[in-house]
Amino acid sequence: MDQKRILDYGVQIGTLARGERNKITDVPGVLVGHSTIKTETYRTGCTVIMPSEQNVYTHKLIAASFVHNGYGKTAGTIQVDELGTLETPIALTNTLNVGLVADALVEYTVKRCEAEGVFARSVNPVVGECNDASMNTIVDRPVKKEHVFAAIEQATADFEEGDVGAGTGTGCYGFKGGIGSASRVIALDGKEHTVGILVQSNYGATHDLTINGKHIDQSILDEVNGAACDKGSIIVVLACDIPLTARQLKRAVKRCSVGIARLGSYIGHGSGEVFIGFSTANVIAPESEIMNIRCVNEDVMDRIFRAVGEATEEAILNSMVCASAAPNLDGNVVHSLAEYLERIK
Amino acid sequence: MDQKRILDYGVQIGTLARGERNKITDVPGVLVGHSTIKTETYRTGCTVIMPSEQNVYTHKLIAASFVHNGYGKTAGTIQVDELGTLETPIALTNTLNVGLVADALVEYTVKRCEAEGVFARSVNPVVGECNDASMNTIVDRPVKKEHVFAAIEQATADFEEGDVGAGTGTGCYGFKGGIGSASRVIALDGKEHTVGILVQSNYGATHDLTINGKHIDQSILDEVNGAACDKGSIIVVLACDIPLTARQLKRAVKRCSVGIARLGSYIGHGSGEVFIGFSTANVIAPESEIMNIRCVNEDVMDRIFRAVGEATEEAILNSMVCASAAPNLDGNVVHSLAEYLERIK
Amino acid sequence: MDQKRILDYGVQIGTLARGERNKITDVPGVLVGHSTIKTETYRTGCTVIMPSEQNVYTHKLIAASFVHNGYGKTAGTIQVDELGTLETPIALTNTLNVGLVADALVEYTVKRCEAEGVFARSVNPVVGECNDASMNTIVDRPVKKEHVFAAIEQATADFEEGDVGAGTGTGCYGFKGGIGSASRVIALDGKEHTVGILVQSNYGATHDLTINGKHIDQSILDEVNGAACDKGSIIVVLACDIPLTARQLKRAVKRCSVGIARLGSYIGHGSGEVFIGFSTANVIAPESEIMNIRCVNEDVMDRIFRAVGEATEEAILNSMVCASAAPNLDGNVVHSLAEYLERIK
Amino acid sequence: MDQKRILDYGVQIGTLARGERNKITDVPGVLVGHSTIKTETYRTGCTVIMPSEQNVYTHKLIAASFVHNGYGKTAGTIQVDELGTLETPIALTNTLNVGLVADALVEYTVKRCEAEGVFARSVNPVVGECNDASMNTIVDRPVKKEHVFAAIEQATADFEEGDVGAGTGTGCYGFKGGIGSASRVIALDGKEHTVGILVQSNYGATHDLTINGKHIDQSILDEVNGAACDKGSIIVVLACDIPLTARQLKRAVKRCSVGIARLGSYIGHGSGEVFIGFSTANVIAPESEIMNIRCVNEDVMDRIFRAVGEATEEAILNSMVCASAAPNLDGNVVHSLAEYLERIK
Repeated sequence: MDQKRILDYGVQIGTLARGERNKITDVPGVLVGHSTIKTETYRTGCTVIMPSEQNVYTHKLIAASFVHNGYGKTAGTIQVDELGTLETPIALTNTLNVGLVADALVEYTVKRCEAEGVFARSVNPVVGECNDASMNTIVDRPVKKEHVFAAIEQATADFEEGDVGAGTGTGCYGFKGGIGSASRVIALDGKEHTVGILVQSNYGATHDLTINGKHIDQSILDEVNGAACDKGSIIVVLACDIPLTARQLKRAVKRCSVGIARLGSYIGHGSGEVFIGFSTANVIAPESEIMNIRCVNEDVMDRIFRAVGEATEEAILNSMVCASAAPNLDGNVVHSLAEYLERIK
Repeated sequence: MDQKRILDYGVQIGTLARGERNKITDVPGVLVGHSTIKTETYRTGCTVIMPSEQNVYTHKLIAASFVHNGYGKTAGTIQVDELGTLETPIALTNTLNVGLVADALVEYTVKRCEAEGVFARSVNPVVGECNDASMNTIVDRPVKKEHVFAAIEQATADFEEGDVGAGTGTGCYGFKGGIGSASRVIALDGKEHTVGILVQSNYGATHDLTINGKHIDQSILDEVNGAACDKGSIIVVLACDIPLTARQLKRAVKRCSVGIARLGSYIGHGSGEVFIGFSTANVIAPESEIMNIRCVNEDVMDRIFRAVGEATEEAILNSMVCASAAPNLDGNVVHSLAEYLERIK
Repeated sequence: MDQKRILDYGVQIGTLARGERNKITDVPGVLVGHSTIKTETYRTGCTVIMPSEQNVYTHKLIAASFVHNGYGKTAGTIQVDELGTLETPIALTNTLNVGLVADALVEYTVKRCEAEGVFARSVNPVVGECNDASMNTIVDRPVKKEHVFAAIEQATADFEEGDVGAGTGTGCYGFKGGIGSASRVIALDGKEHTVGILVQSNYGATHDLTINGKHIDQSILDEVNGAACDKGSIIVVLACDIPLTARQLKRAVKRCSVGIARLGSYIGHGSGEVFIGFSTANVIAPESEIMNIRCVNEDVMDRIFRAVGEATEEAILNSMVCASAAPNLDGNVVHSLAEYLERIK
Repeated sequence: MDQKRILDYGVQIGTLARGERNKITDVPGVLVGHSTIKTETYRTGCTVIMPSEQNVYTHKLIAASFVHNGYGKTAGTIQVDELGTLETPIALTNTLNVGLVADALVEYTVKRCEAEGVFARSVNPVVGECNDASMNTIVDRPVKKEHVFAAIEQATADFEEGDVGAGTGTGCYGFKGGIGSASRVIALDGKEHTVGILVQSNYGATHDLTINGKHIDQSILDEVNGAACDKGSIIVVLACDIPLTARQLKRAVKRCSVGIARLGSYIGHGSGEVFIGFSTANVIAPESEIMNIRCVNEDVMDRIFRAVGEATEEAILNSMVCASAAPNLDGNVVHSLAEYLERIK
């Protein structure tokens, strides 16, 4: 990938070190794939986060979720919260496609398990969503299972950001939104660990946008014909290789809203702010009734919280500057933040 | 309907008065429909609770959920909990069919709204599930959207219980489970109000079953070759015409587990115990920024709690005695509790 | 102790094996102490559960809470839920004494730490309560810090049940309530582990009481002049030596209500049902940033759930049959269940 | 009062209109009182928010809480969350004084009710806290019930901010913290309504502080010898005269963290971030079993969220600039932000 990202524009978010790619895929084993649909009537798609090279159904990962604003249709959080584990890839799509995409994750998991001789009779697909109805004829649910399978197939560490996959039809602070990612590296017991974030951004009112304290001035507001109110949703996926219990992971994802608030949002009523996190550090595939897991001393959570806040904020900005301008269904253009960055000072 | 129910066997659960039909449809406006699939490979289906004669998307009802054990895949509770409202019918189905059934509820809602000139760009389908994999080739997801539409079409006040709809393939305490219902009537300010319950029962170990304190004796255990452990799930839907806020409704549905525990279950790890409630007493279709709603004085919640506990317990028993024996995919028969009731003393 | 307990009356609750004492103190290291106040105006007191022989402030234990009905004033659950640890003994007292008893736990902890050269600048006291206003001039808050210190001082494995300590003034199902305990033993990886329960019982309507399915008959109801409605509260403390994460412990304590429901309660509106659990299996006193903890394979939770349900049910009955009749402030006698047990068939 | 507040320094937070005093007491009926303790060994105190001119025990107000980070000892939230009502004034104090201050609120409520002929046998005191151990010999719990009663007695609309009452010993972002307040006015159905916020600020690392996007530069960091990590807590109290259900109020207080995050915090692990809100618009004193309450159309929640975020951010800054420099127990001075504001650009 060779996309110009927010750091390339000289906008420095936070103080922690970044991972090599500055993407969620800096967490070893994590891959991301997209299926993008762009036609006259549809701008939408599907993005899949593959949490591990292993079959996550048979090698479950510790996971947690937090809903900061539940005006949303994310599937799968009830079981994640109860059992503290993730057993499928995480898929993102448009609001009305959650059912079909969840069904595709079920089919993928059943078949992958079958191929390994495992009968998956119960599967908990995790699917997040944003509403892209301004750009996409959403009532048609254009994302089919083939799109999900293709996204899984094409998953890679060096994935594209911006208006691709589940971010194809989204808008953020009145500019074009999309998929964005970032990562932070912290040391624990002297060893480097990575917090990776991926967002599907689709929220925010234009006049609220604040980048490192800088507001959008009136001349830009006049030009962009942006979003007057904060609605639409943002899904944040956190991956890390830090050993965390489900309780600790829940504390960590609860800090995703820090990044959102820093950019000016009030976590709007009409926006589903849903955060899902997993750690690759413990694999839950028990062979005895009592097992050993690793977790962090609670005092180091602060480093993780800082990493989550910074990476979420930067991932949202990446989702915006990597996205090109795109037309709404009503013909109006939704501009790219990249066009205006120099004027936001 | 002319099914023999638990009360017809002389088993009296609780002390409160029952509604006319002793079903969830005693709550005015509530209807229930089934689609049943019974073939050699499939025993499954779909049950739909229609909460109101009005379009519930444009005339939302106050709602709440409580998850007593989240080993389950119920869709839609995030938004119900945040906004305190229900905007689609509630559908029940098998575990792996949640995605397709949710998609069908979206299509139904979009089309019904279109017909009324309303554009439903965001829809929160509520779908509960139990795992019927012992009787049903669940990985095929045999419930299609046509089944959901048919269940809606055929919804009626006088619906069938037992092995129909979403209860076609379920087992309960090692006997045949299914769909069951019951209701209770309480007075508020001197006027009668109704609490109605519908369950999809699929949980419980046979040796735990306790009916009004009577256990299953060893001779029956030997015969039925029942369930050794408590897993599978139970979904409880509560309807009422009592004016309740979402907070009060959440308190009410939290008592569904009382009925489950009375019958001997420990709310097993492998069983998703998910409770969803709605009230028809306030319709949320605001025309001004401030609105009036009615709710109960908190002190009367006890009457409601008692009604919820009793009706849940009786609904589960109805789901069992109304169900006929049926074969598992492995050829073994799952017996009906009705065959053994006389011997449980 | 030589008190006659429910099992001595031939009432067998559940099927699992009991620990040696059939008390919470079967969990190694756990001790219980009481301070009892009985005068003409006061019947109240304080009961303290010492979770460990070590200073639990410096050697924290994993803990969790669940509130089934929050009409109650229990202190300390916010931090227990966030950090998943217990750092003081757990004290039980009357409703209006929570503040003073919490203050006493702070003083105890600060001094014990000081003696060990540790400065305890932040202490999270955990205090449960029931309302004993029918027997106790509760507005005077007669429990002073000396009572708390004395209860701690006298803590023992072989503690008294019934109308002692925090159970001195409580009533349960219209009979005399009090402190009760029970335990269950389960095997994990072939080794015995113990679940211990202690309750402070103060809830339930007399006509609802059901013992192994047997109801109170009218002649008893006429005699006892019992409780017409279910209010008052029950606090359940769970101790175990099973390695559990805080998430798993929360699942476990959520099953305390099974025992309550089995005895006939609907988890009344006016009754604070608060459950607090801790495990002695992992001591949290980290020396590095990443640590190892043990926990169970989730599939064995069922055994724990069963143990929690059974032991809670039996502990409540023990709290009642070990209690003698006692006078209310209005002069009426609250009878002991022990007087009537033979007539409940 | 004639204190110089953040707006007087030319720092403009947000865009909404302020109430007359720009304090929580702009909500009609709300008063605030302080008791301040300043000696060589103690800098601490108590602040009381009186929610209504009526006895709030007999005329309860709808209330809700949200815990963003539960490393804290706030009392009373279990019942507030269950019943959705507030029945005492809200008191703030230091961490180890919560028990004694809760006890004082009980005594106050019991006596006030007695004087009105009401027997308050169950009282749920709400007490928030921050840890002021750096400035205050906290283990002595110097706040006595007389301090609470005096704060109640002196409650006024025109209360002092900064290092008074419960803010006497607190620090915020390494500067002196304290009590701060702000308000915002929004229109609903054409009528003005007020959101008022009061904070007890005691959190934040100095290098994180960001005021309207402006960071603290290195020269200031060198001078102030500030806080290296984000711990200590912040309690936010929200009052409003907007008709909200408890569910809506919970959504509103959940936005307090927006104001905190805007100022640069990551909602640190060691900081208890607890938010409590109440509305004066409905008084719960039911005379029948069904009652009418007013609430807002959910779509207007955005205006409220914005008001909560802005007012929290401004209240925190007011708590800091109104506070004078003060000595830590170790002799080091904690500076006032007011000294440095001109250099933060």
